[in-house]
Amino acid sequence: MISRAGDNGLFISFEGIDGSGKSTQSKRLAEHLRVRGHEVVETREPGGSPGAEEIRALVLQGDPDRWSAETEILLFTAARRDHMERLILPALADGKIVICDRFADSTRMYQGLSRGDLRQVVDTLHDLMIGREPDLTVLIDMDPAIGLSRALSRQTADERFEAFGEDLQAKMRAGFLALAQEFKARFRLVDGGRDADSVTQDVINVVDQALA
Amino acid sequence: MISRAGDNGLFISFEGIDGSGKSTQSKRLAEHLRVRGHEVVETREPGGSPGAEEIRALVLQGDPDRWSAETEILLFTAARRDHMERLILPALADGKIVICDRFADSTRMYQGLSRGDLRQVVDTLHDLMIGREPDLTVLIDMDPAIGLSRALSRQTADERFEAFGEDLQAKMRAGFLALAQEFKARFRLVDGGRDADSVTQDVINVVDQALA
Repeated sequence: MISRAGDNGLFISFEGIDGSGKSTQSKRLAEHLRVRGHEVVETREPGGSPGAEEIRALVLQGDPDRWSAETEILLFTAARRDHMERLILPALADGKIVICDRFADSTRMYQGLSRGDLRQVVDTLHDLMIGREPDLTVLIDMDPAIGLSRALSRQTADERFEAFGEDLQAKMRAGFLALAQEFKARFRLVDGGRDADSVTQDVINVVDQALA
Repeated sequence: MISRAGDNGLFISFEGIDGSGKSTQSKRLAEHLRVRGHEVVETREPGGSPGAEEIRALVLQGDPDRWSAETEILLFTAARRDHMERLILPALADGKIVICDRFADSTRMYQGLSRGDLRQVVDTLHDLMIGREPDLTVLIDMDPAIGLSRALSRQTADERFEAFGEDLQAKMRAGFLALAQEFKARFRLVDGGRDADSVTQDVINVVDQALA
């Protein structure tokens, strides 16, 4: 049973490497929950509120070395603070289910691990300025080579987060699996290496159990 | 004697309420020091590096309530980190004198004091992500009513920071004086309530003593 942190809603995040199917699966979960009569707010990070989307654009546009990892962590924490204040916490207070495509665990991985040993900085900033974890985190686990080929075939605007090689994808996968061990109570692992319908069924089972 | 923190340069900040003459006096000090043969970098906050100026614009544009005080502190700390990395620290490492119109003490006052009791948050973020204080901080002290009338006559673009009443100016003045007590070793108080030439002479004396 998932414990909810003091509000009536349920805060679900999706995590995983690029190309693991987070966006597709979070949309399908939202549809399923709406059919069941829940009020659902779908959002994503970085971004999610008007202010946070502006910060996202500031971080992702331009040269990849435009910001140091430390500045990037501060900017993403600022965006998350705005997103929490303006969208996530009010929705949870209204008893809604919030589904967020990436949250603080992605910062722990992509800024805390991939650009240097900054996990402690990410965590300290999170504890100080955000304080709240999701009630449930669905980690879609996937072979890094498959994830990379899917991500590269997409041609999204956020090329900075897609332009990673397989080594980094493998490092991120291992990092997410370690994070799932660290935050056992809220993490649920789903095998993303199958057809999308099977993955969706696992995601739905995991969330229905949490809601039961 | 001012102690310099591990680099050859000297890092000087100017602080004070709006309308106290910081910008004029920092320009005059720079001219004086250049005549004496020093290499001087003049800069200001919020902003000071290309990235930090973009963050400044993001914070200052639009509705004054667009960002919470906490998000604003994170954005200003991100801007300061970029400013430190890209401009201030390299200049100090080159043995230059850096003169900065406002620095972290302004965040301690305007975000830490004026919008709630957030001083501890400002300090924790500063210690974690910035770590460095100026070697010398020139506080230009001024009667709040005079400062306010000067500031309001200027019509600058940053109306958010000028649109404060006399009560807030008085609170900020008292706050800066308390900060000067707290950081005695680096603060030097100059009476800004006189003609600009007399103020300049005091500023020059204070800095020449620090350089001696």
